[in-house]
Parts: sequence; structure tokens; C-alpha cells
Amino acid sequence: MTFLQKLEASIGKNNSLLCIGLDPSLNKIPEHLKQEEFPLFVFNRAIIDRTYDFVCCYKLQIAHYSALGIPGIQQLMQTLHHLQSDYPRIPIILDAKRADIGSTASEYAKEAFDVFGVDAVTVNPYFGLDSLVPFLERAEKGIIILCRTSNPSAKDFQDLKIDGKPLYVKVAEKVIEWNKKYKNCLMVIGATYPDELKVIRELTPDMFFLIPGIGAQGGDIEKTLQNGLRKDKSGLIIHSSRAIIYASAGEDFAEAARKEAQKLRDVINSYRN
Amino acid sequence: MTFLQKLEASIGKNNSLLCIGLDPSLNKIPEHLKQEEFPLFVFNRAIIDRTYDFVCCYKLQIAHYSALGIPGIQQLMQTLHHLQSDYPRIPIILDAKRADIGSTASEYAKEAFDVFGVDAVTVNPYFGLDSLVPFLERAEKGIIILCRTSNPSAKDFQDLKIDGKPLYVKVAEKVIEWNKKYKNCLMVIGATYPDELKVIRELTPDMFFLIPGIGAQGGDIEKTLQNGLRKDKSGLIIHSSRAIIYASAGEDFAEAARKEAQKLRDVINSYRN
Repeated sequence: MTFLQKLEASIGKNNSLLCIGLDPSLNKIPEHLKQEEFPLFVFNRAIIDRTYDFVCCYKLQIAHYSALGIPGIQQLMQTLHHLQSDYPRIPIILDAKRADIGSTASEYAKEAFDVFGVDAVTVNPYFGLDSLVPFLERAEKGIIILCRTSNPSAKDFQDLKIDGKPLYVKVAEKVIEWNKKYKNCLMVIGATYPDELKVIRELTPDMFFLIPGIGAQGGDIEKTLQNGLRKDKSGLIIHSSRAIIYASAGEDFAEAARKEAQKLRDVINSYRN
Repeated sequence: MTFLQKLEASIGKNNSLLCIGLDPSLNKIPEHLKQEEFPLFVFNRAIIDRTYDFVCCYKLQIAHYSALGIPGIQQLMQTLHHLQSDYPRIPIILDAKRADIGSTASEYAKEAFDVFGVDAVTVNPYFGLDSLVPFLERAEKGIIILCRTSNPSAKDFQDLKIDGKPLYVKVAEKVIEWNKKYKNCLMVIGATYPDELKVIRELTPDMFFLIPGIGAQGGDIEKTLQNGLRKDKSGLIIHSSRAIIYASAGEDFAEAARKEAQKLRDVINSYRN
């Protein structure tokens, strides 16, 4: 089963386009977990066990783990193992935004798919096609390519005009072309830029987009869904992390995360009907 | 001492612009090392101990380690520790090409500078300035920003014309502007594109460039130096990895690496005089 098939099945089963970002920081998790030997893993496990039926997938941003060194990577792997053994039908995205020349990109593909065993990975397009081929050739995996990022400085380069079109549109056009061959591409488009999302959706009625920027970054859910949904009311992975995983700083954090996840899933679905 | 000060001192002491890439692969290191508990570390240590007096710095590409999981990261750290304790005057570049929104970029800066303790890191400009600020604010570190990469597909996006100028020139112009404030920027420009290197050197007579692509990738040393050197015959970090570290597959690999390193340093210097 490919990542996209697994994703479609998961969206259907949980009636959800919500992706929760498991990106915990040691200084933000509840006080009572800080004494644990593996605090990030214990935190993640509790969140997963109370939200798994409201998500289409989980995304793990690797820097939140690698910033702690090997103990952080261990807790990333513990979290992945928990997901893979207890919730094998839920696809996992590793958010790593890797990019390098081809021979090095092969090593990054091994990191994501062989070491961590995730279903999809985010990558950066700046090097061009040959840097992405080692990822794209993993036909069963999802390759999620940055197009329009959610941060304010995205405009520095992504909005520069080439023959009247911004760079992010040129990137989208290339990704759409590559996807005809590889059939496993997705794109990242920030919820903070719903107009840009509309432009890209018009270029590709079928592809999936990963949408960060809802919640803490201030993205507009209504506009995002109006502009980004496919005709079948799917085609978006709506990512939220901080607003869900830190919904409570108390002992009820997992239950509070569950409520926020359900609420956000339902708000998203209200625009799908 | 800042990265740039450390680099200038090291260039002077060893009379060298050569940077050796410590990017070993398990299937390419000499047969007799493959039984070692920490084969990449043992390999690296031998190379370092026989080349330290011919380099201005070492660069470690992180994917070659992370593709092996935690044992790979352990060997990266062992190598860094060996360099930091036995050769503290030689600056170390972590080649990670990280990029993400600001809050995540802070975690990547911790990974590079706090976990690994390196002197400089490579980063990808696609997200724009706010994604680089957590790196740039580490005033004592070197922030090496991709400009024109060495791979054939670099043209896919980096050559797209904006108001008549290719994207890589627009990136260079921004980096030069940011460097006026932060004073710790360098740029990556592939040796496979010496004409592009000339364009960028004309824009900034003073900045340091990291030049990959010599050796296995076919970059032209003579043109690179003619087009890239500053007036003081410095300002370039010429990177080579495979041609040096795999100079011999036998028990004499470190001695062979020494000979290749000396040869390449001297060829480079022949264009500096």
C-alpha cells in the first residue's frame, strides 16, 4: 500500500483531514512529565492514544528531537515504534525538509525510510530534480515538496517573479510535471497564504497538499478549505501542533488535546459538507 | 574567536584553502576496517591524523551518519570530539543544509551548535530571512548559505530569471545585505559553475565562499580559483571528499589521503601565487 492509499484510507476511516504535529519541547510539556526518563515519548504516547481516531496522519518534526542529541532521537524512534506497532494504518510524515546533491540525498532517503521507517518525508526543492530523485524513486512513499511556506519571510524568494509568475508557482509547475512520472508527490502550502493556495489548486485539481500554519501561526481555516479542497472535498492535510498538544499544561493534557483535535476536525469538516 | 577568525588563522597556519569532507560510507571504506565496532570513526580518525596540517577546515555531511541511525550519529560525535580535543584550532563545518520556519530553525541551530558544537553550518535559503535568523544570531558561528549548488539540476530553479537576473544572484544579493548586519555569512557556490562564481565574486569582494564539486563532481580548479579568489588570494574554502578519503582502498588509505590532500593543497596554492 502506498502512502497516498494509506492516507486516503485513513481520511475515510476517521473522517478527518487533521494531521497532528508531534513536536514537543521539554520546556512546554506538563510539569509532571519532566521527571520521566523519556519525557517526550511519554508525552507523545499519551497524545497519540487519545487522538488517533481524529487524525488522518501524524507529522513529527525531526529538529524537536535532534536538538536534544541522541536521547532526543531515541524518543523520536520510540514514538515511531509506538505508532507503527499500535496504529499501523495511520500514516506518519517525517518533517525533515532535507535537500542535497543526489549522492547525499540517497543517504537522507535512507535516514527517513530505512532508519525511521516513515511513510512520507518533506523535502526542499532548491537543488532541483536530481536532488529529489532518490526520494521520488521510493514509489511507496510520499514525497512532500515545499512550495509556499507559512512564514512571513517566504516572500523573500518564493514571491520573486519569473516571466510574471512567482517562484512558488514555477516550483508547483515542476512538481506537477515530476508527479506525472513518479505519482508520489505532495506539496507544502502554508495556511497563512490562502490566495497562493487557490492558485496552486487551480494548477492541479488532484494532488494532495500539506497545509501548516493553522493555529499558532494564524492561518485562516475557512479560506484554506474554500481555496484548497478538491472537488471530492479531500486533498488537504491540515496540520496543527501547538494548539492541540499544548491545549492544557496540566495532568489533563491528553484529554484536552483530544477535545481540541475533535473540535478542529469538526470545524474542518463543517467546510467539507 | 569567531568561525571566520578561526578559519583565517587556520588558512594562514597550514597555508591551505583545502577543506576535506569526512563523508565515509560503510561500503567504501577499506575492507580491514569493516569489522571495527566504530568503523566510520576509526576511518575518520586515521584520515584526520594524517591530513590535519594540510587543511583549513573539515566538513562533515550529516546524512552519511544519520543514514546509519543512532550508531552513525555516535560516530559523528566521536569524530567531532576527536577534532575538538586534539585539533581545537581547526574549524569544523556541519553540512546539514537545514531550513524551516523560525521556531523550528531554533531547534536546528541547537542541534548544530549545542549538541554537535561545530563552528559553522550550511543552510538552505528557500524560506527567507526569518528562517535563518536563529542561525545568524549565533555571532561566533559561521552560517553558510546555499547560493549556486554544484549539481546538474541546480538550473531547475536557481537559474530562473528575475528582472533579468538568475535566482542565485538574487539570493547572493540578499545574503550580502544580511551579512552587513550579521557579519557571519558565507555562501555555497559549486566549482562546477565557475562563471556563476565570477558573477558572485564581483558582487562581494570580501565574503568567503564554500566551493564543493572539485574532484568526483568534475569542477575545474583553475577556473574556480581565477574567478573566486579575493584580492588577498584567499576567500575560498575548496572542498574535496571522495577523491581524498578514498584515494586508496587498502591499509595505506590514510597515507594515500595525505598524499592526495597535499597534492590538492599545492595545486590550489599554485594558483594563489
